[in-house]
Amino acid sequence: MNNFCFLSPTKLIVGKDTELQTGKAIKQAGGSRVLVHHSGGHVKKSGLLDRVLNSLKEEGLEYFELDGVVPNPRLSLVYKGIELCRKEKVDFILAIGGGSVIDSSKAIAMGLPYEGDVWEFFIEDNGVVHDVPTKSTPIGVVLTIAATGSEASNSCVITNEEEKLKRFCDNDINRPVFAIENPELTMSLPPFQTACSIVDIMSHSFERYFTPEKGGNELSDRLCEAIFLTCMSCAEALLENPRDYDARANIMVASTLSHNGLTGIGRSGDWSSHFIEHELSGEYDVTHGAGLAVITPAWMKYVWRDNPEIFMKWATRVMGICPEGKSQEQVVLEAVAALEVFFNKLGLPTKMSEMPEIKGEVTEEAMLRMAKRVRITNNDGTVGGLKKLNTEDIVNIFKLAK
Amino acid sequence: MNNFCFLSPTKLIVGKDTELQTGKAIKQAGGSRVLVHHSGGHVKKSGLLDRVLNSLKEEGLEYFELDGVVPNPRLSLVYKGIELCRKEKVDFILAIGGGSVIDSSKAIAMGLPYEGDVWEFFIEDNGVVHDVPTKSTPIGVVLTIAATGSEASNSCVITNEEEKLKRFCDNDINRPVFAIENPELTMSLPPFQTACSIVDIMSHSFERYFTPEKGGNELSDRLCEAIFLTCMSCAEALLENPRDYDARANIMVASTLSHNGLTGIGRSGDWSSHFIEHELSGEYDVTHGAGLAVITPAWMKYVWRDNPEIFMKWATRVMGICPEGKSQEQVVLEAVAALEVFFNKLGLPTKMSEMPEIKGEVTEEAMLRMAKRVRITNNDGTVGGLKKLNTEDIVNIFKLAK
Repeated sequence: MNNFCFLSPTKLIVGKDTELQTGKAIKQAGGSRVLVHHSGGHVKKSGLLDRVLNSLKEEGLEYFELDGVVPNPRLSLVYKGIELCRKEKVDFILAIGGGSVIDSSKAIAMGLPYEGDVWEFFIEDNGVVHDVPTKSTPIGVVLTIAATGSEASNSCVITNEEEKLKRFCDNDINRPVFAIENPELTMSLPPFQTACSIVDIMSHSFERYFTPEKGGNELSDRLCEAIFLTCMSCAEALLENPRDYDARANIMVASTLSHNGLTGIGRSGDWSSHFIEHELSGEYDVTHGAGLAVITPAWMKYVWRDNPEIFMKWATRVMGICPEGKSQEQVVLEAVAALEVFFNKLGLPTKMSEMPEIKGEVTEEAMLRMAKRVRITNNDGTVGGLKKLNTEDIVNIFKLAK
Repeated sequence: MNNFCFLSPTKLIVGKDTELQTGKAIKQAGGSRVLVHHSGGHVKKSGLLDRVLNSLKEEGLEYFELDGVVPNPRLSLVYKGIELCRKEKVDFILAIGGGSVIDSSKAIAMGLPYEGDVWEFFIEDNGVVHDVPTKSTPIGVVLTIAATGSEASNSCVITNEEEKLKRFCDNDINRPVFAIENPELTMSLPPFQTACSIVDIMSHSFERYFTPEKGGNELSDRLCEAIFLTCMSCAEALLENPRDYDARANIMVASTLSHNGLTGIGRSGDWSSHFIEHELSGEYDVTHGAGLAVITPAWMKYVWRDNPEIFMKWATRVMGICPEGKSQEQVVLEAVAALEVFFNKLGLPTKMSEMPEIKGEVTEEAMLRMAKRVRITNNDGTVGGLKKLNTEDIVNIFKLAK
């Protein structure tokens, strides 16, 4: 087990009607002038926004609305939010929505006390970011889609729409003060959205499970497996009944625990599937979870030989593959095939050619262009932990995902 | 899944040499005048105390030592600590040790800003405690024994030695600011101590797993099972090699996660095995973990029919019992027998008659005396969740544990 530091101070307030506690939770956290950031649309129509705003009024809090978030949250909206917060002297930011609203709230929260351009926190030259945030504004979350885990994570992903760049800024100051999670709010999510969410949740622990470490992490192995097994069984339950409260609730909390750092304690991470997918969704505006359903199996097929032990563990403990009389390769590839079957069963693509957003063939030129954009995470110019991938490797993974 | 609120703000700093970060962590938490509470003995002789005190000196912190803690921490020492803190105007309490030192530190921390007698927080009449703490003093922990999970929990257990009463006070203000966990510090623990610790860790999730809920908690089921499976496999590894770093590390972190509330999210608790054991160790001064190894299997045999589903899940997923062609009773009793075999293999008793501290037979009179003292947790005068136990039930459990 590697040395580690784990901090997850976000208070989770989970269950039916918990959004009615929002005003109290903000007041407890010391907020008085609140930016209420949301995606409009269903949040308004469903009456959720009114219920939350009423709870703010009941506590005598002042608030200012900012809506219009889209998937893959845009930098331009972040700038608009910072401006509004400065004008209204906001001291607390409430995000009502999923990962996009939360991430743009986090960027606004970091940008508010910062004199420079908030985008400096997101871009790097040769692996060195331009600037590191030291202050932020307290954030609370009312979660409506369980997927990104952003409600308790230290991460923030923003897309610069002009430059077609999707970039992240991970920092503990990004962690929300509280996350209010009412599983009933996720019940009306369309099956495709639900499926994408489940892949994203699983992927956050895949990235922490498929790492270079060979043994020594029994606890985090088991915690990751708890996430995988919960997601898979609850996904099956939701295919039967999309309004299964317990299945929605278990997935919602799994979302939070899969990305607050818990499942990665004592080991390094990989994250190359995420970074490769970021370029796919940056290029074609595909949904992140669907992109992961395409990239992850291809990545697994390409890298498993660099740590067969952990892939064998996953294949047998999670995917239920019987190893008797089979080679490691057979076991692992059977497990990956079973994962693809599971993704397909949820209505997701597992090849780029199956994605409606991608018109025509993805050319080798496009693959190379995306591969070259993938964020470098290692000093030697590669990305990933289990296997360090160079541009050629990434193109090969795209080819496997074609 | 039941509605729940989960907060675990304790920063975990885990790994080799992490005790050298103690001074920095205290300073970061705003401490300047520190009560250093420890058990003396091995903490001194091993050089740990010096290493920690040096890290305090390096940060320019003033400190005052209080030692002499014994297992089942005593109220008298708590009073002494409060007095010392008041005299020296202490603003931070550092516990170096295991559950006893941490719990007496928590009691000192609560008592320091309180005008009345701190014992009022621990005692109740008919289920109503005399007073509830609203303030405490920040605490940090350098953990030397992984067992009670007190390093991140909200709980505090103190024994009033004059009245032979072991009582608890659970409150979120008890949660330490940080817990420093160097697994190497636990390597020299004798096998019996190690074994008792492992049972205590498992028990904290048994109490959260064997609850009245029938389904709906896939995630916390799996999280509990992660704790059980990790403890069992690492315990086996330590029988082979007591200095197995990874096994010690996984057990140490499992200890923290098993009692910070994580494994109990979305469900009620039971806790009757703990409360029954508290009376056993209050009466005979047996080690808590050994007492649990005796009480838990007896409790399981007595109550399993009230929720066979969860016992079947545990028997098949954790204890590896094959259910085919067997009745539920056979499966569950086989699993309980396997648990007893596991405890025995660790060198622990599973009957009161096997405990060296208990001289002669435990008479029915003694059983009744202990049963009558067990803390009531339900309005109807019973204890427990999965099955509500009255005095007669508790005596029956003692009889099964005889």
